[in-house]
Amino acid sequence: MTVRIGVIGTGAIGRDHARRINQVLGGARIVALSDVNRASAEAVRDDLAPDAVLFATGEELIASPDVDAVLVTSWGATHEQYVLAAIAAGKPCFCEKPLATTAEGARRIVDAEVAEGRRLVQVGFMRRYDAGYVALKQAVDGRIGAPILVHAAHRNPTVPEQYVTPMAIHDTMIHEIDVLRWLLDDDYVSARVIFPRAAARSHAKLRDPQIVILETAKGTVIDVEIFVNCHYGYDIQCEVVGEDGIARLPEPMAVQMRLGAKLQNEILTDWKDRFIASYDVELQDFINAAARGTAAGPSSWDGYVAAITSDACVAAQEKAGEAVAIDLPPRPALYS
Amino acid sequence: MTVRIGVIGTGAIGRDHARRINQVLGGARIVALSDVNRASAEAVRDDLAPDAVLFATGEELIASPDVDAVLVTSWGATHEQYVLAAIAAGKPCFCEKPLATTAEGARRIVDAEVAEGRRLVQVGFMRRYDAGYVALKQAVDGRIGAPILVHAAHRNPTVPEQYVTPMAIHDTMIHEIDVLRWLLDDDYVSARVIFPRAAARSHAKLRDPQIVILETAKGTVIDVEIFVNCHYGYDIQCEVVGEDGIARLPEPMAVQMRLGAKLQNEILTDWKDRFIASYDVELQDFINAAARGTAAGPSSWDGYVAAITSDACVAAQEKAGEAVAIDLPPRPALYS
Amino acid sequence: MTVRIGVIGTGAIGRDHARRINQVLGGARIVALSDVNRASAEAVRDDLAPDAVLFATGEELIASPDVDAVLVTSWGATHEQYVLAAIAAGKPCFCEKPLATTAEGARRIVDAEVAEGRRLVQVGFMRRYDAGYVALKQAVDGRIGAPILVHAAHRNPTVPEQYVTPMAIHDTMIHEIDVLRWLLDDDYVSARVIFPRAAARSHAKLRDPQIVILETAKGTVIDVEIFVNCHYGYDIQCEVVGEDGIARLPEPMAVQMRLGAKLQNEILTDWKDRFIASYDVELQDFINAAARGTAAGPSSWDGYVAAITSDACVAAQEKAGEAVAIDLPPRPALYS
Amino acid sequence: MTVRIGVIGTGAIGRDHARRINQVLGGARIVALSDVNRASAEAVRDDLAPDAVLFATGEELIASPDVDAVLVTSWGATHEQYVLAAIAAGKPCFCEKPLATTAEGARRIVDAEVAEGRRLVQVGFMRRYDAGYVALKQAVDGRIGAPILVHAAHRNPTVPEQYVTPMAIHDTMIHEIDVLRWLLDDDYVSARVIFPRAAARSHAKLRDPQIVILETAKGTVIDVEIFVNCHYGYDIQCEVVGEDGIARLPEPMAVQMRLGAKLQNEILTDWKDRFIASYDVELQDFINAAARGTAAGPSSWDGYVAAITSDACVAAQEKAGEAVAIDLPPRPALYS
Ligand SMILES: [Mg+2]
Ligand SMILES: [Mg+2]
Ligand SMILES: [Mg+2]
Ligand SMILES: [Mg+2]
Repeated sequence: MTVRIGVIGTGAIGRDHARRINQVLGGARIVALSDVNRASAEAVRDDLAPDAVLFATGEELIASPDVDAVLVTSWGATHEQYVLAAIAAGKPCFCEKPLATTAEGARRIVDAEVAEGRRLVQVGFMRRYDAGYVALKQAVDGRIGAPILVHAAHRNPTVPEQYVTPMAIHDTMIHEIDVLRWLLDDDYVSARVIFPRAAARSHAKLRDPQIVILETAKGTVIDVEIFVNCHYGYDIQCEVVGEDGIARLPEPMAVQMRLGAKLQNEILTDWKDRFIASYDVELQDFINAAARGTAAGPSSWDGYVAAITSDACVAAQEKAGEAVAIDLPPRPALYS
Repeated sequence: MTVRIGVIGTGAIGRDHARRINQVLGGARIVALSDVNRASAEAVRDDLAPDAVLFATGEELIASPDVDAVLVTSWGATHEQYVLAAIAAGKPCFCEKPLATTAEGARRIVDAEVAEGRRLVQVGFMRRYDAGYVALKQAVDGRIGAPILVHAAHRNPTVPEQYVTPMAIHDTMIHEIDVLRWLLDDDYVSARVIFPRAAARSHAKLRDPQIVILETAKGTVIDVEIFVNCHYGYDIQCEVVGEDGIARLPEPMAVQMRLGAKLQNEILTDWKDRFIASYDVELQDFINAAARGTAAGPSSWDGYVAAITSDACVAAQEKAGEAVAIDLPPRPALYS
Repeated sequence: MTVRIGVIGTGAIGRDHARRINQVLGGARIVALSDVNRASAEAVRDDLAPDAVLFATGEELIASPDVDAVLVTSWGATHEQYVLAAIAAGKPCFCEKPLATTAEGARRIVDAEVAEGRRLVQVGFMRRYDAGYVALKQAVDGRIGAPILVHAAHRNPTVPEQYVTPMAIHDTMIHEIDVLRWLLDDDYVSARVIFPRAAARSHAKLRDPQIVILETAKGTVIDVEIFVNCHYGYDIQCEVVGEDGIARLPEPMAVQMRLGAKLQNEILTDWKDRFIASYDVELQDFINAAARGTAAGPSSWDGYVAAITSDACVAAQEKAGEAVAIDLPPRPALYS
Repeated sequence: MTVRIGVIGTGAIGRDHARRINQVLGGARIVALSDVNRASAEAVRDDLAPDAVLFATGEELIASPDVDAVLVTSWGATHEQYVLAAIAAGKPCFCEKPLATTAEGARRIVDAEVAEGRRLVQVGFMRRYDAGYVALKQAVDGRIGAPILVHAAHRNPTVPEQYVTPMAIHDTMIHEIDVLRWLLDDDYVSARVIFPRAAARSHAKLRDPQIVILETAKGTVIDVEIFVNCHYGYDIQCEVVGEDGIARLPEPMAVQMRLGAKLQNEILTDWKDRFIASYDVELQDFINAAARGTAAGPSSWDGYVAAITSDACVAAQEKAGEAVAIDLPPRPALYS
């Protein structure tokens, strides 16, 4: 069976996912497109999906009997309405982050999915599909004993002036929030932020870098350095300290060179390159589950928990040094 | 357009390629299967390709108007006849190595393809599609100056008793022969083999390890350690020394651990794991070219040159220490 | 000129320093020994320093006109009195840590040295002489821009039952306290301790591991993981994040092996091996300065500041999560 | 006892060894100096050895009753005569390489020492004292099984025009010749040289780089890349392949930096930095043995074997591609 997919939102990420589905991955085909900018949808159709039908609205696309499953890659503020519509239609739905712009919105999606009684939503937390994190999880689960500490870093060479302090959580650390929870199979109970002096390359409305400290229900302490104007490269680090030993996220594959009195290899500078392969894997997982009428991978619940945790981290930025409690509601059985 | 593919030979590699095409890659579908063991073909159909038609012979499969392109993954001795038949039918053909069991056989394929006037054959030298070698080639082409020396190693943990000395060339070093020629954009002019004492784990009819030294038309010297009973792991090493610096093939991605007084990461032990991702890439390249009615990647000519070079290396094993000349006929314009 | 040295305290470290001076280093000779256990002093004389005269007390040794400089390697509680006596005698004095058992005691030494008007005391903070830290300091001073963050770890395989929580500061973290202050050329303004759940191998009176967070006068934030029952090895890590890039303390030199499906090298397990070479360098520095009638390297002031900082860190352990202020008195001109 | 040392030849290396003995190492003192250029000897006396007496000739220095042991650091052509004189005087003698300018000259020294009946000569093959090679030898002896192959490289950034092809053996590869023989506890039976095209930075009278292949009595095959105009740095590599695994010479300690989109550490460019610490260790070994009236470390026999092997390698350069036999006379019992 070929899963017939409709894409809502044909900007950069929507176009890229359409290319994946029609050219790289197996088992699915783009049959429908929709965008508020119709010319954008037409261009994707012409370039990548000649068989696709254009719909004036996301809701019409979702309602089409020719569409088996939906990709929500539109502007973030519209995610919630499309995901709720897909759930109402009983169609599997892949939603790029954020699942919703507020924790309440994410909660409404969780409630709708629970009412529907089956997993229909996959959130675009692609790091869980990265080969490095997958290998790290194997080491954490089987080699180093129970985790006690995690040291992580999320570094980006530069951000524009409009990137303000809370975005370091909502746009950047959000990935650590999800992937570390998955890596540790644990939940957060508090967040704390510590600011050193701001870097010279920081901006008026950005305190950069910062250390976010999370504590988990099992008692693990996580420190995450977020440094979005680090200048030297895009660099994701993660080291888990367990009872018996330590495991470290692999560095991206690189040719080692001896050149100009340096033993050297390249560090990536563009975030898009770092997890590029994981987008293929996450979408294949979506296709495979959609073929069975359901969804797998990061769930609505994961998106909701990430939203609650992000809000707590932003609150912790405002009370620098203090611990802010993270209280999660009970986890519905659907997500256990 | 979906390329309709027929597979001749449904053993382990044929089955695996069928899975790739129907489940992992885009743009193609398995529509036909054939194997001398009909039950094997039936099993692949039932497990992976429900729409495939079974053919009694490879020739009938190739002749079918429903088949656009052919995968030859049968027993090596039958490759030549099927590839010739595919060329005669004007259909793109992916052939696992060896292209033929003799250099003469490979030459007949080259001649047929040249007579046909267009590329139709891709040989299964998957290393050219490995992300590590691709990155190494970029460094060799652009960073380290013109190559002068190459140090390589092909190590395998163990081989069975029936693996005899010439197989170290035909089955093992064959991959270095092709990939280094591609990496250097060069041709070989001589081969020489030097044997140290045999390892204790070697066999009666195997002299293991050995050093094969190749010289190229441009004057580069390559030394390749082949050690097929190295015990510790499956390990492929390649270091290119250029005028300005040195580039080294990346190690496979691995989690670094600190455990039991060792800073350690795993080394692969099974050759199938090392280049697994490159099989996907090579077949996608085949599909993409087949959709245009042609073939890309490693050509018949490359398969023929590999056969000539292998024969010279085996002759060099028999005259240990001496250089054996490698005389290549002129390269047809089709492959320039 | 050969510096004539007297050693007060001939236990393990005193004996080892006597061996260094008489057998490894240049420019000095052991001429006097004293220990509360006379048999111990006799044994060192017989084994390593045949020309040495034995003194009944440290004070008599210091007073001897044949002694140019003094090593205080006795029991910690006696350090203060001997160092004060050496200052009073105007003789250069190398004192193993702690300089005194209380910050007040260290202050008395500072005051005496200031009154004397010249540097006479070197404290045994040997890490400043470690080739790795010296190279790291060069990188911090010249390559990575001004420091903003430091991530450090001090891991030890195991400690005995009598090692209690404050010892993680006084006996273990004391080295980071001194060496990071030197590395950053900065002073601390606050300390905070965060405890994850205790490791299974921790003890009743030990909370292990812990994260100590120090903030400096220049606004740098330092996080130090102390994990004294980490099991896998003795491992000292230090990474400095600057405005332009990151520098990391070198790993100890080790042979890389490919063995048993592991790419591996040994991690030390005994702390004595990690900084062994730096003891030679620190004592040679002492000898060289003593020949000029003064002292170099870590000063009384550095020992005093380390004591104040340690006390703050222990207070921070008792108020887990809270920042404890570190107020330093003005630095005397002698130490600027 | 303090060993009283006389230095014959006060050029760069003689001066540096004088500094070591008087300022860095224990157990010895420079008491005598001699140089054909008296001003040079006076300068060393004034700067480093105020107590030293100047002698008009090396022979007079050796004859002085105030001299216990001798350092021969004069012009290479004079080594043999001074070493023979020291043996005749029964005084331990450290001789920088070459022991003599011909194998015959080295043989005369061996014969004289054998006649004397005890070890009196240490040759300045400092690599045996390098911490990296010492660690590698431990791994080779105890961890990786019996050696079968060695892959080595000796790379230098640049050499002047007067450096001609044979110097790649006599001045450069001489270190590998000695240290690999020691590492493997083996002797050479043949040498072969293979030349790739010459590097663009090579000179009219220099074929650079080259591969020297040595076979040993135990059947180990060694390939050594010599590349003296490699441009990028001074880089010494050595990898030993054994029955069970592989051990690799440690890279020099270096701070790892993340800077300018590169994960990088410095490669040395000056050969003097690479083995600087081993000079201290070799001379301390000389002093310690001299205090017992004998010599340790690399012997006259080792120097003689290195000379024979070097001559064979130069002959092999002249017959590129062919194996040149290395026939060693029986080893005198003194060196077993
Ligand atoms: Mg995503
Ligand atoms: Mg293949
Ligand atoms: Mg000390
Ligand atoms: Mg030397």
